[in-house]
Amino acid sequence: MASNLTLSSSYNAKMNPDIQNERNKATFDYINLTYLIDGSKEKTERRRYIQSLVENDADFQHKPLAFMTREERYSNSIRKAILAVKKMDALGLNDPWEMEIYKGAANHSEDPSLTLHASMFLHAIINQMDTDQQAKWAEQTFGYTIIGTYAQTEMGHGTHLRGLETTATFDPKTNEFVLHSPTLSSIKWWPGNLGKTVTHAAVAAQLYSQGKCHGVHMFMVQLRSLEDHQPLPGIELGDIGPKLGYSNIDNGFLRFKNYRIPYDNMFMKYSKVQRDGTYVKPPRAKLTYGSMVLIRSFIVGTMGAQLAKGATISIRYSAVRRQSEMELGAQEPQVLDFQSQQLKLLPYLATAYAFIFAGKKMKDTYIQSSNAISEGDFSVMPELHATSAGLKAFTSWVANEGLEIQRMSCGGHGYSQASGFPELYATTVPACTYEGENTVMMLQTARFLMKCMTRASNGEKLHGACSYMSERVPSRSQASSLEHFLNDNFIIQAYKHRAYRMANAAAMSVQEQLKKGKPQHEAWNNSHFHLLKASEAHCHLYIVNNFYEYVMESDTPPSVKDVTLTLFHLYALHGISTKKGDFLHDGYFNGNQIDLVEKQIIQLIDKLRPNSLALVDAFDFSDTILDSVLGRYDGNVYENLYKWAKSCPMNKKEVPDAYGKYIKPFLMENRSKL
Amino acid sequence: MASNLTLSSSYNAKMNPDIQNERNKATFDYINLTYLIDGSKEKTERRRYIQSLVENDADFQHKPLAFMTREERYSNSIRKAILAVKKMDALGLNDPWEMEIYKGAANHSEDPSLTLHASMFLHAIINQMDTDQQAKWAEQTFGYTIIGTYAQTEMGHGTHLRGLETTATFDPKTNEFVLHSPTLSSIKWWPGNLGKTVTHAAVAAQLYSQGKCHGVHMFMVQLRSLEDHQPLPGIELGDIGPKLGYSNIDNGFLRFKNYRIPYDNMFMKYSKVQRDGTYVKPPRAKLTYGSMVLIRSFIVGTMGAQLAKGATISIRYSAVRRQSEMELGAQEPQVLDFQSQQLKLLPYLATAYAFIFAGKKMKDTYIQSSNAISEGDFSVMPELHATSAGLKAFTSWVANEGLEIQRMSCGGHGYSQASGFPELYATTVPACTYEGENTVMMLQTARFLMKCMTRASNGEKLHGACSYMSERVPSRSQASSLEHFLNDNFIIQAYKHRAYRMANAAAMSVQEQLKKGKPQHEAWNNSHFHLLKASEAHCHLYIVNNFYEYVMESDTPPSVKDVTLTLFHLYALHGISTKKGDFLHDGYFNGNQIDLVEKQIIQLIDKLRPNSLALVDAFDFSDTILDSVLGRYDGNVYENLYKWAKSCPMNKKEVPDAYGKYIKPFLMENRSKL
Repeated sequence: MASNLTLSSSYNAKMNPDIQNERNKATFDYINLTYLIDGSKEKTERRRYIQSLVENDADFQHKPLAFMTREERYSNSIRKAILAVKKMDALGLNDPWEMEIYKGAANHSEDPSLTLHASMFLHAIINQMDTDQQAKWAEQTFGYTIIGTYAQTEMGHGTHLRGLETTATFDPKTNEFVLHSPTLSSIKWWPGNLGKTVTHAAVAAQLYSQGKCHGVHMFMVQLRSLEDHQPLPGIELGDIGPKLGYSNIDNGFLRFKNYRIPYDNMFMKYSKVQRDGTYVKPPRAKLTYGSMVLIRSFIVGTMGAQLAKGATISIRYSAVRRQSEMELGAQEPQVLDFQSQQLKLLPYLATAYAFIFAGKKMKDTYIQSSNAISEGDFSVMPELHATSAGLKAFTSWVANEGLEIQRMSCGGHGYSQASGFPELYATTVPACTYEGENTVMMLQTARFLMKCMTRASNGEKLHGACSYMSERVPSRSQASSLEHFLNDNFIIQAYKHRAYRMANAAAMSVQEQLKKGKPQHEAWNNSHFHLLKASEAHCHLYIVNNFYEYVMESDTPPSVKDVTLTLFHLYALHGISTKKGDFLHDGYFNGNQIDLVEKQIIQLIDKLRPNSLALVDAFDFSDTILDSVLGRYDGNVYENLYKWAKSCPMNKKEVPDAYGKYIKPFLMENRSKL
Repeated sequence: MASNLTLSSSYNAKMNPDIQNERNKATFDYINLTYLIDGSKEKTERRRYIQSLVENDADFQHKPLAFMTREERYSNSIRKAILAVKKMDALGLNDPWEMEIYKGAANHSEDPSLTLHASMFLHAIINQMDTDQQAKWAEQTFGYTIIGTYAQTEMGHGTHLRGLETTATFDPKTNEFVLHSPTLSSIKWWPGNLGKTVTHAAVAAQLYSQGKCHGVHMFMVQLRSLEDHQPLPGIELGDIGPKLGYSNIDNGFLRFKNYRIPYDNMFMKYSKVQRDGTYVKPPRAKLTYGSMVLIRSFIVGTMGAQLAKGATISIRYSAVRRQSEMELGAQEPQVLDFQSQQLKLLPYLATAYAFIFAGKKMKDTYIQSSNAISEGDFSVMPELHATSAGLKAFTSWVANEGLEIQRMSCGGHGYSQASGFPELYATTVPACTYEGENTVMMLQTARFLMKCMTRASNGEKLHGACSYMSERVPSRSQASSLEHFLNDNFIIQAYKHRAYRMANAAAMSVQEQLKKGKPQHEAWNNSHFHLLKASEAHCHLYIVNNFYEYVMESDTPPSVKDVTLTLFHLYALHGISTKKGDFLHDGYFNGNQIDLVEKQIIQLIDKLRPNSLALVDAFDFSDTILDSVLGRYDGNVYENLYKWAKSCPMNKKEVPDAYGKYIKPFLMENRSKL
């Protein structure tokens, strides 16, 4: 069954017969699953409408990104970001969700420019400036009379905030702060659009007053002349050079040489420096926690969406691609018919759904928690922080692996930029590093887990994500049949048992080190091995548990519930198979039970096979957003790959300049020797 | 201890104190390990001498590759390839090993241009042309009066050779072959330097004569005019467009429109077409097997070398980088001091050695086997083919994972092209796909394993890599102490047991399917899950076993033997820990034994920690070849990162063109609204 509601005009074109045939096999109408992903039929329709505004707008059209130089990509990206701001304004679009959709459609597979202006820069103004300051700066920011970024990371300092070296020294004589980069490693490094674009930045620096350091605070700094965009005296700015991806973004560096800013430019909602230099502490620390949590929660959903793009490309292509010989002399089979190909692609398809649903849950939890916090209940914060940190790491690592497996499942063509994978990968993997390096994040989660273990072992009944620590889970699984492994109880209990056992092993490791007389920090460092495994098991359980709850609570037709439940089963059992050592280690499962798990995986894959196309169609990526010749909705891969290649810059000249310069003289000289 | 023998002039510059301090900790002189890797002291010195010829040659200097456009990289690469041919000729360098070194040094982190001319193209001429043909074409090839490539892969056809669609139809009337691309998917796609550079190609096509297809044969085809480089009539040529990497190479496409070549251009050493069109079969099939095996064996060593580059960059950088807080208020520790960092980097350091030694063994085996084959003994071929196919897949997959772990261990800077990782990764990972797609390779290995299992179960005593199938290995490991897990017997036996069990499970799976009445090809397809695991376990055992033998047989000082044995232990035990499910599944190991393995891993890591720098110095990559700001020998990362960034193309203009075009009008318009 295919829905009549379509997005792209190309959908009406001639369809590759293999892909059409796959679509006809589906046991459910994919559009109902799209509604579930978007939230409702209305939201799907609204999203498609907004996307169509951009995709039908000639102003947003351009040649493939892969054919542009870095300078062209930068320029094109700035052009579109400004265009989007103006057009959204004209259209009256101001709902954040709708603005994201608009910008997303405008940017194809790239991340848009100017994002930090409207996110981190604006958030800092709203959350960390006092009322007078806000009045001044928010207006300029909303009105785009300035363009800002958020400058925190330094060349030598990333995740560990306290290590920042940039100084802001208060000079009571002139009533100014003096910003300075005392070392090479203190040069601000990485902020998006800092290199060439912004006029201002919210700068994190160590505050010095009356000869004392008061820790990291934020300062509003004008960087460039509003007349001619030249860096102001005392400021050195530049692009940090080419990266694995994000070619369109001018991530920049910023070096201060005793650069003076007015007193009013320190963000003073909480901490203050009085005119005489007296430092006044904030009434409560950690109030800015929230936006970090929100961003990390957002990443979880994004990792799901990126894997979903990879799944769409690789599964569509695997339906079109015919290769190899199953039966001697028969037509080459679709590569999607190989069990090995299904084993690569379907578990990551299920994972995409798992992460998308986890992202939704995280967002809901964030909103609930924010409400609680605004009513003065801070008790939810540690768990919220720990969960968002761990899940950000867990999902981005898995996405990193998954995208490469998906890319390589497309054979040689996956390596071509026509596949979309090189750009997709390069845009996704920095999530392992930004907003908190993954290993550091996992260790933060572990710290929370260890505290919970202590509380649970003191007899406290825990709620929330760590409730399993105070549950009694049997030490051996009683599952004994293939059907048992479709039973959520057996499955989720296994993950709970594993998470508990890993947390316990980590706690024991730390204890053992302390007993040996190691100081706390060494005991902790020497237990990284176990602590990281504990966090991984905890996050894995969270995703599995949430996947099940999400499917069961969703209001969808039975055919959709059935297929999403199958995805849940595949995700959960594939996880057990992949990590079987963890479940076998203490005999929770024995080998026979793992055999059942693996048999069930094969059955689930067989069951999902006819729905694979519908399950990726349900993600409902337009061809523009997918930006992949291999992943086209119509499956017409080869003709478009040929067309794409022929139009690439290297083919503008039939004979390259290198011929006249190097090849011809070489060949002539050699011929003359004969 | 540091050796006095140094390569790069930068070695004498001021050294970063952290990195110097690390070098001072080493328990062995790294140069002795370098000799082991190169083969001897003489070989090390000769390699360094040849590299110095290039690195001190101004003609080979240029700006960083990361700062060039694709067109510049192509041009620069052609220039250097031609220069290298001429200079090697002038220097009288003609030993293949020495030529590789020369070209490698000339090409920094890129793969050189024109490689297929002197490898696949030339090999085809020598191995598949008859004597008269060879006389004609080898002279032109050696003399570079033509430039050739090897055109096999098509847009729709890769690893499965029989699926090629290009046709070569013999026309006895004109005594010509007519080459034709009957479909889009038959267009030749991927051959290196085909797009813009070569004049000729050895083309694989389905031979038709007298109305019958005789399968794939090779044909010599002139593609471009030797006067002006224009494609000849009937030939369409072009670049296939940008890829994840290999930006310097013009991988190309080639479409034939009834293009005629002379009768003599069919490669006729084995098969022949007589003047009347009669097809004469070769006396013996599969004689061209060898070069594929050689290339795949070569890839194994290359994967080791690429991981070694990643290890060098990430370990040096981890010695320089200080980050985070272990003890409150103390100096930020070197990231190499975190257990989590050691757990990421040291196992892949050990893996690099494992693969380098496996590559050496494969090369030796190839030479021995070639000798046997040339004496008429073809019995070694199936194992040689299966081992090279499987190891190529096994090592390239691991390298793919390892390089990304190494890159991300460098935090944000790993994402910068200054790290060298983006180029290194992009140059390494296509090995998962080229020269036989990895999954297909693993299934070929599995086919061989299944045959061996049948022979073993029939009581035959097997020799070589499958000898474990006819050994009696206990069904439970008796290892019961930490020391036991430093005993090669206990370790290797465990891998043998696992390999046997996995092979057996795969054989059982196929049998079970056949019993259910499935035809052979379906039984095989439905067993991919188990077959792939069997191949993986087999390859893993091969690498472990060879690592141990290589270390024990090597003639090195005790201090070197000691450290390489420690690397072997870490590689082998880390493999058990990572794949513990496989060893626990049938109770060969129990949880307590795995606990011992994991404790021993921690001890080994502690033991290796002081030698980490020496172990990467031993790979002896010059700064030019490493091409990484983070991996510099002198450890002066930050100043050079800053210098690198400042010189990047985006910083040529202080104010970008996008300012005048987009940013300024936008800001002005917004200000006018205030």
